[in-house]
Amino acid sequence: MHKVTFLPHNKMIQVDDGANLIRAAMDAGVHINASCGGEGVCGKCRVMIEAGEVDGGITEKLRPADLEKGYRLACRSAVKSDLTIRVPVESEVDASVLKTQFTPRRTARIKQVDFEQLKERGLFIPPVEKKYIELPPPNVQDNLADATRLVSFLKINHNEHRLVTRLPVIRKLPRVLREGDFKITATIARPVHEGRKSHIINVESGDTTDFNYAIAVDIGTTTVYGQLLDLKTGEALAEHGEFNAQISYGEDVISRIVYAEKPGGLERLQQVVAETINVIIEKLVRKAAVDCNQISAITLAGNTTMTQLFLKIDPRHIRRAPYVPASTLYPPISAADLGLALGDHVTALVYPAISSYVGGDIVAGIMGAGIYQTEKLTLYLDIGTNAEVVIGNRDWLACAACSAGPAFEGGGIQFGMRAARGAIEDFSIDPLTLEPMNITIGNVRPKGICGSGLITIVATLFELGVIDSQGKFNRDLDTPRIRESEGIVEYVLAWKDNTQIDRDVTLSEVDIDNLIRAKGAIYSGCQTLLEEVGLTIGDVEQIILAGGFGSFIDLEKAMIIGLLPETDPEKVTFVGNGSLMGAKMSSLTNRIRRDVVEVTRKMTNFELSETGSYMDHYVAALFLPHTDIDLFPRLKKRMAERRKVAE
Amino acid sequence: MHKVTFLPHNKMIQVDDGANLIRAAMDAGVHINASCGGEGVCGKCRVMIEAGEVDGGITEKLRPADLEKGYRLACRSAVKSDLTIRVPVESEVDASVLKTQFTPRRTARIKQVDFEQLKERGLFIPPVEKKYIELPPPNVQDNLADATRLVSFLKINHNEHRLVTRLPVIRKLPRVLREGDFKITATIARPVHEGRKSHIINVESGDTTDFNYAIAVDIGTTTVYGQLLDLKTGEALAEHGEFNAQISYGEDVISRIVYAEKPGGLERLQQVVAETINVIIEKLVRKAAVDCNQISAITLAGNTTMTQLFLKIDPRHIRRAPYVPASTLYPPISAADLGLALGDHVTALVYPAISSYVGGDIVAGIMGAGIYQTEKLTLYLDIGTNAEVVIGNRDWLACAACSAGPAFEGGGIQFGMRAARGAIEDFSIDPLTLEPMNITIGNVRPKGICGSGLITIVATLFELGVIDSQGKFNRDLDTPRIRESEGIVEYVLAWKDNTQIDRDVTLSEVDIDNLIRAKGAIYSGCQTLLEEVGLTIGDVEQIILAGGFGSFIDLEKAMIIGLLPETDPEKVTFVGNGSLMGAKMSSLTNRIRRDVVEVTRKMTNFELSETGSYMDHYVAALFLPHTDIDLFPRLKKRMAERRKVAE
Repeated sequence: MHKVTFLPHNKMIQVDDGANLIRAAMDAGVHINASCGGEGVCGKCRVMIEAGEVDGGITEKLRPADLEKGYRLACRSAVKSDLTIRVPVESEVDASVLKTQFTPRRTARIKQVDFEQLKERGLFIPPVEKKYIELPPPNVQDNLADATRLVSFLKINHNEHRLVTRLPVIRKLPRVLREGDFKITATIARPVHEGRKSHIINVESGDTTDFNYAIAVDIGTTTVYGQLLDLKTGEALAEHGEFNAQISYGEDVISRIVYAEKPGGLERLQQVVAETINVIIEKLVRKAAVDCNQISAITLAGNTTMTQLFLKIDPRHIRRAPYVPASTLYPPISAADLGLALGDHVTALVYPAISSYVGGDIVAGIMGAGIYQTEKLTLYLDIGTNAEVVIGNRDWLACAACSAGPAFEGGGIQFGMRAARGAIEDFSIDPLTLEPMNITIGNVRPKGICGSGLITIVATLFELGVIDSQGKFNRDLDTPRIRESEGIVEYVLAWKDNTQIDRDVTLSEVDIDNLIRAKGAIYSGCQTLLEEVGLTIGDVEQIILAGGFGSFIDLEKAMIIGLLPETDPEKVTFVGNGSLMGAKMSSLTNRIRRDVVEVTRKMTNFELSETGSYMDHYVAALFLPHTDIDLFPRLKKRMAERRKVAE
Repeated sequence: MHKVTFLPHNKMIQVDDGANLIRAAMDAGVHINASCGGEGVCGKCRVMIEAGEVDGGITEKLRPADLEKGYRLACRSAVKSDLTIRVPVESEVDASVLKTQFTPRRTARIKQVDFEQLKERGLFIPPVEKKYIELPPPNVQDNLADATRLVSFLKINHNEHRLVTRLPVIRKLPRVLREGDFKITATIARPVHEGRKSHIINVESGDTTDFNYAIAVDIGTTTVYGQLLDLKTGEALAEHGEFNAQISYGEDVISRIVYAEKPGGLERLQQVVAETINVIIEKLVRKAAVDCNQISAITLAGNTTMTQLFLKIDPRHIRRAPYVPASTLYPPISAADLGLALGDHVTALVYPAISSYVGGDIVAGIMGAGIYQTEKLTLYLDIGTNAEVVIGNRDWLACAACSAGPAFEGGGIQFGMRAARGAIEDFSIDPLTLEPMNITIGNVRPKGICGSGLITIVATLFELGVIDSQGKFNRDLDTPRIRESEGIVEYVLAWKDNTQIDRDVTLSEVDIDNLIRAKGAIYSGCQTLLEEVGLTIGDVEQIILAGGFGSFIDLEKAMIIGLLPETDPEKVTFVGNGSLMGAKMSSLTNRIRRDVVEVTRKMTNFELSETGSYMDHYVAALFLPHTDIDLFPRLKKRMAERRKVAE
């Protein structure tokens, strides 16, 4: 680790050896002009190395004399020692403003399943277990049926009462027993509830107890993720994601439903998502070098539409008022019957849903994140193609789907894009010159703006007064970057010479308006849920973010725009793909499978459009951060201070 | 009813109007010479009508003068009033012998399921029930999932707790609900054990509660029988039998197993028996004019080989020592998965077996006949292609398969045949002339001898001393009907002029020997089972016969040859196709399904070949009726009396 001090801000940050210097500045809350995203072509991020050593940073954009003085391009420099860096600023006023400006970039702590703790608490109870047994072979005095011999032996020698044998097992048992000289491994599926029957789902010759795996799957509308789990150790051996092949039939759930209503459409969508899962399974077993036949279980979670499509249940009523799903509980079903390339003995367990728009992915997240067990009032927020909110704790749970729209995934934003190479993911602005500091994924010239970048850009522009609380640009500012184009006011993030797309990359008031609607929908959704149970947003004790997007959000920025309630960032954690995590947890502990039905019963679903107060909350939230600034006291204080400095 | 008195025997019998006169004589135990089976061609059954009136009986075989005197052919005469009939006998001695000769033909009382009693005892609990419900349609305030709406309504309004919905039901539910304006009929499958879950297996628009049917099937090696049951009333609406199409691949279970071991053989045999069942289902629904889609359940019973073949379980070890079946309990399985032409929602329930040679057909018989509930020590005997014996009562049950061979079905008997047109089914003999009285099925010239006919012929020949206790003909008798042909002594039942086959129909010592082995195997099986539990054959309190054959057996004759222990014929009942009866009972009362597993646990299976005492008992039973004549006191007494008359 090296210590990097930025002057004149006098801000310090610890970074790893080799860290990119401009990213270090951004993380420290230090603005350095940078238009090209970090590719080194704009040449604006000149900084002077006053002490210490960097690798690189030398380009033709710098004159030999400047190089001599110690100037480098920050975006091309790698930190190699403790450093003192001087950032050129326009004036002393500039510098003093900078000092009050930013809090360092702060993303949510990542919360992962503490598997060791699970084991210590005795909760590592995989739903499928293997037992190796050596049976006495039959003879004329003892010619019990093969199945009876197996069941009796397990009863007497392994205390396995209440065993049920399935027909496919009976079919293969005679051969397996004799090929294995009556030494076999039985695969036993455990009941969800104690006292219920266990099922012998498979038998194999010899001892295969070392090989027992499960697959956990998140069926996302866009991407399907899978994990291969070792049921003997609990370890995740491999993870893999693939685009959901249903994408060819529609980008979002509504267009998928429309397709499913066409003749053969439902069958086609079921088939292609099963194929996607099969590709993932194939990749997983190859990565981990395990035998596909040793997979004993598969657990899946997805939103209600994805789940109904996967189970070949017509989803047409999901998109029509009053938005009734066919079912919210899904019985276990043979994986092979669903077209999955797994053994006949494998049962697919599918996470239950709550409603048409709060699906099994959310329930899985609730289970995986343990919200149903905590005393703390928790806000669980999954922002993906759609946004879902759950509020509650172990005593009660309320949820709603927010019609947030796809702004966070780039939808409705002119230069919006997914978090991919070339997306502006981080941003700062010089408060006087209004020149930007763009940092892109991959440090290449910008192509567009991803969700977390969008939040940061709007928050930064708002906090510095470049846009007002209604998301309108201050028309008085003197900069060519703010302009009106075809009647729409916009800010130029990068001139076309510095982009990959031969066009200026801009952010317009229309884009900002879409973001405000999206964040307003989520915030007001939370407020409405809380109000319905007699609480307020201030009562929230912890926030858990889920969805691929959440790990990149600058929490302070999200609180500035009013996407998240203002709270100590320490109280915000990120669980990543909550749906996948829940599917994984179900594969590792049967306790989850027992509790999940109870959780779905406990959960109150609110259709926001039918909840009287929602529209008022929503309209009030269509401001930055909110019409009621007292909900954001820290921001209020900072903005007051900044106004003082400016005067 | 008319009263018919036969002279000089002075025997009387009551018969229906129109009854055949020669059959009336047979049933009364009156011998009338008759070679042609009743077709009227031999002309030997001349009788004189002394009083009363008959229809027919007038043929060219009778001279006009005889007709004038009142002579008629008995076999062509129909009883139309009370009658006095004089049978010509050779001498007075003859007549006196006749008087002591025969007991009237006596078949077992037919015991049928007393369905009304079942209802009165509250045991009419079909495993599948239909409920008509009118659900409140969803609206924006109440947009529960369709499945939740259904389950909640049934819970609240019908006290249906613990309901599980299956995936195919979830798939069709949205459409069915909306097509039926939320008025639907739910088909609910009940658990075997109280407190377990009920399954909603089907939903239909509108009220279909009047249409709820079940199929009961006996999968016989030779013939498959089915019954269509109305689950609303408990009535059997139709019954139909078809040859098991597997016959093309082998006559008996062993040859079927051999075929199943060939590549694709098992699959083929499974397929063809499913096709046979489908033909039966089609005939049943056509006969009863019901909709096949309204069949909610199917229960099947068969011997272990038939069951394994039907469930596509390799039966190869059934025919190899130590004769281990794959399983004796069979889990419920989708009927459609087995290739049955029934709805997706129909589950096939298959009767459990005991061992490789005591199968579900026997268990079904035990359940159907109620043996597991009676205090009486019961002997249950199913004689079909194989013979199985069960002995016991509600406290204990023991069973064995007897290697009886197929003698009772005509196998190993030169002129043996199934009970079909032209088979000699009844027989008597003139004790002096040794001329026969043959009665055939269909009253046509003989083609052969069926099982019950064989028993009667051998018993009659034995009781009259024509054959001795070792089954050998008395070489001293003076009749052309007893002759030696190619070293084998035989009795000519019908000369070729009087047969359909242009050959003499005979019974040889080889045939008799085969019958003795068959009956000896069964009797000694019973003895062995009883001895193993410390009882003797004399302790048997009731005998229940099953199998198509049992209804035609003349009980006294069966006791004479020592097939059945000598007992009051009143204690013998006949249940017909026990397997089908059990399958039917399971369809009508869930109680049976609960009890059957307990019964299979209670049942002790004996492999006779491995039971030390069996061979001794068997050898001792290879006599008519047995080496120990004291086991047959009534017969012993009658034979002593007859010897006295003869002397």
